[in-house]
Amino acid sequence: MADLRTQEIKNPIDVAEYLFKRLHEVGIRSVHGLPGDYNLVALDYLKPAGLHWVGNCNELNAGYAADGYARVNGVSAIITTFGVGELSAVNAIAGAYSEFVPVIHIVGYPTTAAQKNGLLLHHTLGNGDFNVFSKMSTQISCAVSMLNNQHEAATLIDNAIRECILQSRPVYIALPTDMVQKKIDGDRLNTPLDLAYPPNDPEKEDYVVDVILKYLHAARNPVILVDACAIRHRALDETHEFVEKSGIPVFVAPMGKGAVNETLPNYGGVYAGDGSNKGVRERVESADLVISIGAIKSDFNTAGFTYRVSQLNTIDFHSYGIKVRYSEYPGVRMNGVLKKVTEKMGKLNIENGPKPNNEIPQEEIKSPEPTITQAWFWPRLGQWLQPKDVVITETGTANFGIWETRFPDDVTAISQVLWGSIGYATGSCQGAALAAKEKGIKRTILFTGDGSFQLTAQEVSTMLRNKLNPIIFVICNNGYTIERFIHGWEDSYNDVQEWKYKDLPATFGATKDQYLTYRVETKKDVEELFLDKEFSSGDTQKLRFVELVMPWDDAPTALKSTAEAAAKRNAEAS
Amino acid sequence: MADLRTQEIKNPIDVAEYLFKRLHEVGIRSVHGLPGDYNLVALDYLKPAGLHWVGNCNELNAGYAADGYARVNGVSAIITTFGVGELSAVNAIAGAYSEFVPVIHIVGYPTTAAQKNGLLLHHTLGNGDFNVFSKMSTQISCAVSMLNNQHEAATLIDNAIRECILQSRPVYIALPTDMVQKKIDGDRLNTPLDLAYPPNDPEKEDYVVDVILKYLHAARNPVILVDACAIRHRALDETHEFVEKSGIPVFVAPMGKGAVNETLPNYGGVYAGDGSNKGVRERVESADLVISIGAIKSDFNTAGFTYRVSQLNTIDFHSYGIKVRYSEYPGVRMNGVLKKVTEKMGKLNIENGPKPNNEIPQEEIKSPEPTITQAWFWPRLGQWLQPKDVVITETGTANFGIWETRFPDDVTAISQVLWGSIGYATGSCQGAALAAKEKGIKRTILFTGDGSFQLTAQEVSTMLRNKLNPIIFVICNNGYTIERFIHGWEDSYNDVQEWKYKDLPATFGATKDQYLTYRVETKKDVEELFLDKEFSSGDTQKLRFVELVMPWDDAPTALKSTAEAAAKRNAEAS
Repeated sequence: MADLRTQEIKNPIDVAEYLFKRLHEVGIRSVHGLPGDYNLVALDYLKPAGLHWVGNCNELNAGYAADGYARVNGVSAIITTFGVGELSAVNAIAGAYSEFVPVIHIVGYPTTAAQKNGLLLHHTLGNGDFNVFSKMSTQISCAVSMLNNQHEAATLIDNAIRECILQSRPVYIALPTDMVQKKIDGDRLNTPLDLAYPPNDPEKEDYVVDVILKYLHAARNPVILVDACAIRHRALDETHEFVEKSGIPVFVAPMGKGAVNETLPNYGGVYAGDGSNKGVRERVESADLVISIGAIKSDFNTAGFTYRVSQLNTIDFHSYGIKVRYSEYPGVRMNGVLKKVTEKMGKLNIENGPKPNNEIPQEEIKSPEPTITQAWFWPRLGQWLQPKDVVITETGTANFGIWETRFPDDVTAISQVLWGSIGYATGSCQGAALAAKEKGIKRTILFTGDGSFQLTAQEVSTMLRNKLNPIIFVICNNGYTIERFIHGWEDSYNDVQEWKYKDLPATFGATKDQYLTYRVETKKDVEELFLDKEFSSGDTQKLRFVELVMPWDDAPTALKSTAEAAAKRNAEAS
Repeated sequence: MADLRTQEIKNPIDVAEYLFKRLHEVGIRSVHGLPGDYNLVALDYLKPAGLHWVGNCNELNAGYAADGYARVNGVSAIITTFGVGELSAVNAIAGAYSEFVPVIHIVGYPTTAAQKNGLLLHHTLGNGDFNVFSKMSTQISCAVSMLNNQHEAATLIDNAIRECILQSRPVYIALPTDMVQKKIDGDRLNTPLDLAYPPNDPEKEDYVVDVILKYLHAARNPVILVDACAIRHRALDETHEFVEKSGIPVFVAPMGKGAVNETLPNYGGVYAGDGSNKGVRERVESADLVISIGAIKSDFNTAGFTYRVSQLNTIDFHSYGIKVRYSEYPGVRMNGVLKKVTEKMGKLNIENGPKPNNEIPQEEIKSPEPTITQAWFWPRLGQWLQPKDVVITETGTANFGIWETRFPDDVTAISQVLWGSIGYATGSCQGAALAAKEKGIKRTILFTGDGSFQLTAQEVSTMLRNKLNPIIFVICNNGYTIERFIHGWEDSYNDVQEWKYKDLPATFGATKDQYLTYRVETKKDVEELFLDKEFSSGDTQKLRFVELVMPWDDAPTALKSTAEAAAKRNAEAS
């Protein structure tokens, strides 16, 4: 195995050791994935590098978990095996690409010799082509590094990790079994990776800042609208400062939920065009200037493209540039510009924001009906949440319902509004709960639907295996409610098999001291549950599993209007 | 919605109706998949076309199920939704491509208008590119049909279905929501699809037949070796005739298991190089002529490339051509050649085959040890199987153990020896059991491992939802035993969380009259189980779920030698 060049290297270390030490350096402490014969040797290097192996139930779930871990931790890694393993994870990786989540995907490959000789190995298409799968991943990765030669391995590894973090998107690293133990220069690790964003051209930045300040000072009732890319491209510090110092009424898009402190007096709620509540919609749409930070104007993020905001009144901040009305300034990153705008803006002459309208609707409070309605539950939830909670909502009723939940400070909200793959949330919860635990965050809370939960239910087993204690709500409403609102109201294809959901932890081998289960069917049940100290405490070390029963034909208002728009678009004549 | 050209069409029908009637015509009765908003409208057309909607728990499982259904039924279909749904199924489709299984993958797409305008829709990468996913599928499909225009829809549908069946590989059909109800010519359905293989050039065929007969008549101790492609490319009738009429000793490769009648006097067992038992290996490797039908010489199918058969003694029959020693005859399909060889061969002067050595080893019978060993179980199983059984074995101990099981006549064996994706077997069992039920086959029997089962366990729910009654054996041996034999003997990454497996049917909502559960820990338990009439009867309408406890460190001999070869190859210096 020894390489001739080993003698020339002062501090030789194995490729796998180098790779895993770099993962540790950028803050990764746990690695998701499954064993497979093409990655087994590499797995031996995890523990010595200070990395915990999660051991998921399947690769799609592992991919979702890695996505959730990255959203809490900043970056994550997943290890799969060639062909079968990596392809199972492709949907999760595509989701991370779509939503700007930095996931390092390491794929154990057959030996470079087997690849060169085109051997008819298992996990291949039988055609001797070992590049098919990496080609697929090229479409959903911002870098693809094939470690086929130890002399370039360190450079490729460093490059992949840096691109992953700076572009905030997945990268693909192919690690052939014979490369795992090749010797490379360990001294290179003494130089940490440079993960700083390249600074803006100062003259250009100043120019843009002046343009923005001109419009800002002219505005009378401006609003700030914060969206996903403020989170994903790490502009939250600059955003928070700008929001607090300016006092401008601030709103979030659904994908930006959690990006601003919702206890601030100038926080106004969720804006998503026609999906917003009335007060929010009127305030945003009557603004004479919309300062939009990190927008992703997708259909589900805008309640079906129903923004009524003119570009003539808009300043867009992006990771890749700034746009003021129709003037574009590419290559100027938002972070530096935002910082300078905050420093220089001085006193603004603006109207105060309206209070956010996230109270429980009066008709819901007065209603004698015991049923847990969507309109009642989501605002009520806001009163139970605690600062620092990690809250994951599944595509479906939960993802829309959470718009009505006002968060305490510093809540991390996780959802997949753009990619919208059902099943995501349960996998993501495993990763998020693990990252939260590593960071000392006490509560990770999942809201998923019964239909969605069935796709990835076995990740509850991985939570148990890893001694995690998330609070899981499965909304029991008899199937794919979001689909019903789009098409097939009572059609059986929107039904699912009715499981005994809360029997799952025990079936998955939970010991009695490891979990608690609940079923809530009325508003009163919910109130009692929220008052239950063992259930609510962040110090409870048990996984908590709740069947939250809601009517099959109920949905948050925002979902209804978004679904209507989707159905209409699906039926549009070409 | 009406098209101007509708008036010119005598018998206008909707595109979805046309598509589904074609599926019905080629023998499909059930369609696998999940609903998603881009396929919902199409799903309405299933029932009127006489198709049952399965409604799987997730798309990977649905893909595996479609694969299993196709292996029993001849062809299958799966419907997913754009992006998220289809990508989840990619691993299953790649497996079907690798192993020559005809699966029609229909993907519900956003409208052609949305695609043209590059709308920022959910389930996209957010870059306006709607071709990314179909491009990925190009690599694992023998045809990709984008139904973007109703005037070519029927041609594209017919072409895709025909290619799927003739090439015995997956095809991809993209069905945009606005195309579902476009009108096309229904009279076209009066002409059935032409699914006949193009005949061989008669002169060329005769020439090859003569060459083969020359070698056949010169041989003294020839053997026949039947492999996967004899099944997948529909040459079983010709193979059976040739085997029976010639009386030549016949062996199967692991992927060819089930291809020949194992009760024939000339059946000899499974040949896989060093993985074969001694009698088989000696007989095949001492043959002066090996007539190889439909070979796929992959590592796991040859116990790590350990065939010791000279090409100078070999005649290869393939779907794409014939090879006699080193002389190649491309473009001559095996079916016609085999048929003519059988007709013309006359009397052969050959030695008799040895009896297959699939009895339970004497040391196992005599052993006082009650533990269920792999060496004891698999031969014992052969005595319990019944004609026409469908037997599915998972990649792992089951897939290798089944080499030692002698089948009754007409058993369909399903495994994924080349692609080898763990989790496959449970999904596949759902599809296979459904196809079996539709064909009046009474018993579908699954053998999977605990580690593998966890990847796709929720498909047991789909079996219950569809009132299927397979017999499921989960081998409880504490993790990924096949991986242990390759690397990481006691490493925790090869462990899995210990589930209460047999509690799953109830947790998945099975009613009491819908299932039976068992746990067998000793040979005696197995004997009693096999004698239990309710358990064994094909007329029992209940799903039967067995925890089959075996030692964690035990494996079939063939697995041991194959794993050893894999470990060695993984460690080979480049």
